[in-house]
Amino acid sequence: MTDAVTLIRAKRDGHRLSGDDIRWLFGAYAKGEVADEQMSALLMAIYFQGLDGAELRTWTAEMIASGDRLDLAPVKKPTVDKHSTGGVGDKVSLILAPLVAACGAAVPQLSGRGLGHTGGTLDKLESIPGFRTALSPAETVSTLRAVGCVICAAGSGLAPADRRLYALRDVTGTVESIPLIASSIMSKKIAEGTSALVLDVKVGTGAFMKSHDRARELARTMVALGQEHGVRTRALLTRMDVPLGRAVGNGVEVEESVAALKGVGPPDLMAVTLALAAQMLELAGIEADPAAAIADGRALQTFRAMVRAQGGDPDAPLPRAPHVTPALPAPADGWLTRLDALQVGTAAWLLGAGRARKEDAVSAAAGVICLAKPGDRVRAGQPLLELHADDELRVGPALAALDGAIEVSQQPPPPPPSPVIEYIGAA
Amino acid sequence: MTDAVTLIRAKRDGHRLSGDDIRWLFGAYAKGEVADEQMSALLMAIYFQGLDGAELRTWTAEMIASGDRLDLAPVKKPTVDKHSTGGVGDKVSLILAPLVAACGAAVPQLSGRGLGHTGGTLDKLESIPGFRTALSPAETVSTLRAVGCVICAAGSGLAPADRRLYALRDVTGTVESIPLIASSIMSKKIAEGTSALVLDVKVGTGAFMKSHDRARELARTMVALGQEHGVRTRALLTRMDVPLGRAVGNGVEVEESVAALKGVGPPDLMAVTLALAAQMLELAGIEADPAAAIADGRALQTFRAMVRAQGGDPDAPLPRAPHVTPALPAPADGWLTRLDALQVGTAAWLLGAGRARKEDAVSAAAGVICLAKPGDRVRAGQPLLELHADDELRVGPALAALDGAIEVSQQPPPPPPSPVIEYIGAA
Repeated sequence: MTDAVTLIRAKRDGHRLSGDDIRWLFGAYAKGEVADEQMSALLMAIYFQGLDGAELRTWTAEMIASGDRLDLAPVKKPTVDKHSTGGVGDKVSLILAPLVAACGAAVPQLSGRGLGHTGGTLDKLESIPGFRTALSPAETVSTLRAVGCVICAAGSGLAPADRRLYALRDVTGTVESIPLIASSIMSKKIAEGTSALVLDVKVGTGAFMKSHDRARELARTMVALGQEHGVRTRALLTRMDVPLGRAVGNGVEVEESVAALKGVGPPDLMAVTLALAAQMLELAGIEADPAAAIADGRALQTFRAMVRAQGGDPDAPLPRAPHVTPALPAPADGWLTRLDALQVGTAAWLLGAGRARKEDAVSAAAGVICLAKPGDRVRAGQPLLELHADDELRVGPALAALDGAIEVSQQPPPPPPSPVIEYIGAA
Repeated sequence: MTDAVTLIRAKRDGHRLSGDDIRWLFGAYAKGEVADEQMSALLMAIYFQGLDGAELRTWTAEMIASGDRLDLAPVKKPTVDKHSTGGVGDKVSLILAPLVAACGAAVPQLSGRGLGHTGGTLDKLESIPGFRTALSPAETVSTLRAVGCVICAAGSGLAPADRRLYALRDVTGTVESIPLIASSIMSKKIAEGTSALVLDVKVGTGAFMKSHDRARELARTMVALGQEHGVRTRALLTRMDVPLGRAVGNGVEVEESVAALKGVGPPDLMAVTLALAAQMLELAGIEADPAAAIADGRALQTFRAMVRAQGGDPDAPLPRAPHVTPALPAPADGWLTRLDALQVGTAAWLLGAGRARKEDAVSAAAGVICLAKPGDRVRAGQPLLELHADDELRVGPALAALDGAIEVSQQPPPPPPSPVIEYIGAA
């Protein structure tokens, strides 16, 4: 038997919490014997002192044990999922889940919503008329079985302790802690029941992790956690200094995803998607060429089947924003050398594509289209972005957020580096 | 305008909070717009990152401004108070307040209760039949005016923000932070309205501060805060490795205090008391010899007047414990060289003199009498302590807590060092 103050002080002073300590903590927190103010002090102590491998493994196990674990055995296919730490224009899930499913795996993609400058997969899909992201566990499994993939919200039954802790971290300045991020992501993914998992850990101005070292540490921590809990896990570090693809928003990203599934996606988006698909198929033990599944239309068919299975109409027109404003004229002839992901993400958010608070609604139509990407030749006066808004009053703040977001050079830049920086945990 | 998460993150990342930030924080916390879980995360961030001089000054000013400030002008005498950070057998306030009052100053001693192994001045005085420690502000001022001293509880109107923050720190492992300790103590002392203040910062096994460096830092921080708020402030660092005097408990400490006021107090207790009295009188601008005020009985008369003014009977017998157990027989002939303050304090606490939780009652009679002090010659088998208890069942745990508390040597130890280690802030 211990008590909350003893545990907080131990962690504060840099000591290890035992497995019994952590199990006691989660039990007492669930029963209300440990108060939110005690948990938040502990979270801040963890921010400063960290959690070692053994602590983190128990911490994550307790988050999983706080709820249900989906049983995907009835799906009778190798299951494999992907998780991205979030980036600007990151619509990869919309393309990847049907693509990998079309190659024979089952992809149980339980996703989240966007907060701040990065968008959320569920928000994007909900711009499709009729699309439902709130499925029961039974609907999730039956859709996965019927279609081969499903993209829906993680229900409240999965890792409820993470839900509660995340809400607390969000208001107490304790989000940015690698062990807490890793346990939050991995507890939900492990509870979701997937057998294999590929992590897309983004690095750069538009990513949550700004430095390679921190991103690598997060990736390694999550890969280790996955392996320890019996989920074959790998991670890719990918660049997030420039928006991925050309569309940033909700409906506009669905449109670009459909184009990608038709084989006409922008090269950076396709490179990341195909790199992730290759890892997922390898972990699923499936030999298949994902590019072929795009070329022959199977991936697009799977996407359309998933949309229909989740109540959406794949043929319905996507919402269009009434106000489309060309913006950021190129200051001179030359080559675009910089297009800052964070600033473009912030602009899309201010235009209405994202939310400031969890309770806010998002606009299906608002967003930013990048008319040029770094490396492109541009002419003086040519608008580099297009701002889409439901409400014209939102354009001014978005323009202000874009101040200094671009650079045009007289010299052609070197060819863009590969979007994949590093593989972690590959055999 | 700012928000709680921004402030928490700023402090967490080692940035300075502005005066406006801190004023906003206290205002929003009072209105419930900053939640306890946010404040506790901030307190933990302060534990790690500290508060600089300017931050601490505003922080303390806001705690004072959260409530009333006593107006001691009607007392028409120089006011001076003392605060001790708490030790084992520390009954100095009971002697010092009437002593300094007998010399012509007014001593508004607003005190606290004990928690854990250190006793509380109010608990000690309440062992006197009839003594009331809960006085209204008007009673406090009128007693001070009539008697020259008053020892009572700091009412809920003084620094209520400190009361709330202290309760939060107590349950969130954020007590041991020098700026938070300093602002808590000083906000109450400044709000109490005294013009001058002497701090007794205890160092050693039985003290809150175990190291000289930390004690010195706390003392300097508090002296600076006092000066900045217009209170002439000095500090003494005094030793707390051995109980002060021979009695540890409530009634037993009142008894020893009365003996000290009669001129027959133990030398270590008298040395600390007279050193503090000299500083207080100097700050009050009074030239007087406190030893003379003891010798001629004025100090004792003032104590008796204070007891009567606060409803107590100075002639009533103090409660006696029904169970008195001689304990810790000296293992050999020789000299006592060690008597651990923390262990003796813990034993007295376990015997019933202290409380484990704020809601607990304390025993007026329970405690420990030190039959020998370090430096004393002892004979094999001679009991070194006497345990007083209302309930015989408490003796066993107290004895267990005393295991290893003493050392007897064949060599006479050097004479004990002066109990005063250092003066801080003396001109």
